[in-house]
Amino acid sequence: MSTDTARLEAFSDGVFAIAITLLILEIKVPTAGGGVLTTQLLRQWPSYFSFVASFAFIGIMWINHHRLFTHIRRCDDLLLIFNLLLLLGITFVPFPTAVLAAHLGGPDQRTAAVLFQATYLLISLLFNLLWRYAASSRRRLLSPDTDASSVRRITRQYSFGPLLYLICLALVRVNVLASLLVNFSLACFFAIPAGRNRAVK
Amino acid sequence: MSTDTARLEAFSDGVFAIAITLLILEIKVPTAGGGVLTTQLLRQWPSYFSFVASFAFIGIMWINHHRLFTHIRRCDDLLLIFNLLLLLGITFVPFPTAVLAAHLGGPDQRTAAVLFQATYLLISLLFNLLWRYAASSRRRLLSPDTDASSVRRITRQYSFGPLLYLICLALVRVNVLASLLVNFSLACFFAIPAGRNRAVK
Amino acid sequence: MSTDTARLEAFSDGVFAIAITLLILEIKVPTAGGGVLTTQLLRQWPSYFSFVASFAFIGIMWINHHRLFTHIRRCDDLLLIFNLLLLLGITFVPFPTAVLAAHLGGPDQRTAAVLFQATYLLISLLFNLLWRYAASSRRRLLSPDTDASSVRRITRQYSFGPLLYLICLALVRVNVLASLLVNFSLACFFAIPAGRNRAVK
Amino acid sequence: MSTDTARLEAFSDGVFAIAITLLILEIKVPTAGGGVLTTQLLRQWPSYFSFVASFAFIGIMWINHHRLFTHIRRCDDLLLIFNLLLLLGITFVPFPTAVLAAHLGGPDQRTAAVLFQATYLLISLLFNLLWRYAASSRRRLLSPDTDASSVRRITRQYSFGPLLYLICLALVRVNVLASLLVNFSLACFFAIPAGRNRAVK
Repeated sequence: MSTDTARLEAFSDGVFAIAITLLILEIKVPTAGGGVLTTQLLRQWPSYFSFVASFAFIGIMWINHHRLFTHIRRCDDLLLIFNLLLLLGITFVPFPTAVLAAHLGGPDQRTAAVLFQATYLLISLLFNLLWRYAASSRRRLLSPDTDASSVRRITRQYSFGPLLYLICLALVRVNVLASLLVNFSLACFFAIPAGRNRAVK
Repeated sequence: MSTDTARLEAFSDGVFAIAITLLILEIKVPTAGGGVLTTQLLRQWPSYFSFVASFAFIGIMWINHHRLFTHIRRCDDLLLIFNLLLLLGITFVPFPTAVLAAHLGGPDQRTAAVLFQATYLLISLLFNLLWRYAASSRRRLLSPDTDASSVRRITRQYSFGPLLYLICLALVRVNVLASLLVNFSLACFFAIPAGRNRAVK
Repeated sequence: MSTDTARLEAFSDGVFAIAITLLILEIKVPTAGGGVLTTQLLRQWPSYFSFVASFAFIGIMWINHHRLFTHIRRCDDLLLIFNLLLLLGITFVPFPTAVLAAHLGGPDQRTAAVLFQATYLLISLLFNLLWRYAASSRRRLLSPDTDASSVRRITRQYSFGPLLYLICLALVRVNVLASLLVNFSLACFFAIPAGRNRAVK
Repeated sequence: MSTDTARLEAFSDGVFAIAITLLILEIKVPTAGGGVLTTQLLRQWPSYFSFVASFAFIGIMWINHHRLFTHIRRCDDLLLIFNLLLLLGITFVPFPTAVLAAHLGGPDQRTAAVLFQATYLLISLLFNLLWRYAASSRRRLLSPDTDASSVRRITRQYSFGPLLYLICLALVRVNVLASLLVNFSLACFFAIPAGRNRAVK
């Protein structure tokens, strides 16, 4: 039995909205009498950094989720479960980001970067699982308006994800900063839709 | 007076979304200088376990709620109240899960398991209350498209719940791990829709 | 300029959902080695009480909000502002409830009860403000399906609120427990729709 | 490719709802035995002030967001990104508000006020970015019902924002309280729609 995706999207939006705002709770208000305020505020930079970075990463994931569900019009039980798995991964993002911010430049930065990159590798696998399941033609979960070439373009763009994040994970052994730079570039790559310049509507 | 269920679903989705993400707040970011990061991260396994377990359990409950409300199309005042009671139970889930994770293997694991199993017994009773109220034919809250055999299948599947969770609760006295294994199997049972293989659309 | 109420309801549902689940965060997980688990769990009863009480009160307010907005179909700028004021009051509910639970039976229970009753008095005034503004015939914010007698029944039921909560507040001086009992009865009164037995649809 | 704005609005409503209720978490429940309750409650005034002020400011921003999206009917990828940037700014509001409340009247009030005013300057720039992008006629993101004069009125009202908040920021050097008073008056200015008295529908 398949139903439409309205509630799946509403529930996902709620989870995204909470995950994206969660790290503001980690930013503590400096109390009066705890020293010069400017110094106290500046000392908290890892909190600001992880708040903004999580916001950007989860925001880009939301844009991708939104983009997929302009094509996915019906859902069945397995799609609900794959979507929940993806949301589980996304809800976890603030944690490795905060661990990375707290340990970058310290003796444990390699461990923190491994945790961070592994999270993204997992999420890219879950995005592929969700999309490939929905796009499989015999399930008829996509909108009848979706043309086959759009589906192929998204499938191709997404299939690069796990491979590239695996390279990021391997790069951690060589150079932590380089691996993070590649990770950030990948976020920009996924912010831009597949086959942008050829898209017509 | 009966109205449609759009707002009931939107509000429930919000409560589910918050309940499902709440336990990520319990996972603390290890600070630099608190020892080797890998050790610190591994020591927190009860937090990860309860986060993932709550996510899975609440996710399955959301799937069930979603499934019921593909049939329930109208709501009245008592349905709103029964839905609130169910949400109260679901919002509580992260607490017994975290208590269980913190005490599993310790001297108080039996108490923790009783609390955990009793919560599920209560929730299964509340699911039955909601469904049986809505499905009662004279209230006309179900969609006219719902056929009587689907209603009977759901009613039958749900009626097993309280009995099986009661057995789980009794099993705690005999063997804590066995009772938890039965509980986890039940979650899988409720993830699969009633009469899956016979469903036609 | 007036617009429909879809987003006002969605935003309100989000705020209600957060307010209603917030107090679960106040229930702390007892750590292993902190004494016998049963004792630790039982000692937290004020937290459970305020969680359940806030849930019930905010749930009833949500039912009332839902009921009003089955009649209100259009919104203008002042309605948005009055709705925000009401949400401000509702978001505040968990705080006086927790203060009351922490101090009931103690030397400061009167202060806690005054804070609690004053919050309800304020909210009942804000509910009246919202409804009377929307129901004023010259603003045409109500659905054309709403009959004048339903409007009058709701107006009459709501106009009792501030008076009755004022009596509750005065009762605190005489007897704290009596004032709370009247408050709880009032919640039940507002859970039941105006003119229930005469409602037809 | 452009799609409708339903999910963008639902996701934004979720983020607004969380941001607006977040500061209630900062209000601590005074424990029994910590002194006279009234004194303890009154001593927390900066928490109440920042809760109410954030609620008011974010509420007015929500009204503005709601107002813009009665005109914006389609969204594209850049609009999603500009909307995320705006939400990032809005989610941050509780932090500078709490810092201001904690330091007002203290030796660091100037630093706190600079942080507060700079946040509003940034948000007013992001509101302009979002609106000007959407209103640009060649993108066709506005509803066909929107008349050109409404668009011009909103554009004009919003273009004052950055300039006025820049003046507020400069005023901090001269007089902290004066700069805050101007900031609060601006909030009232943006609560009222552009060209209120001339609006027809």
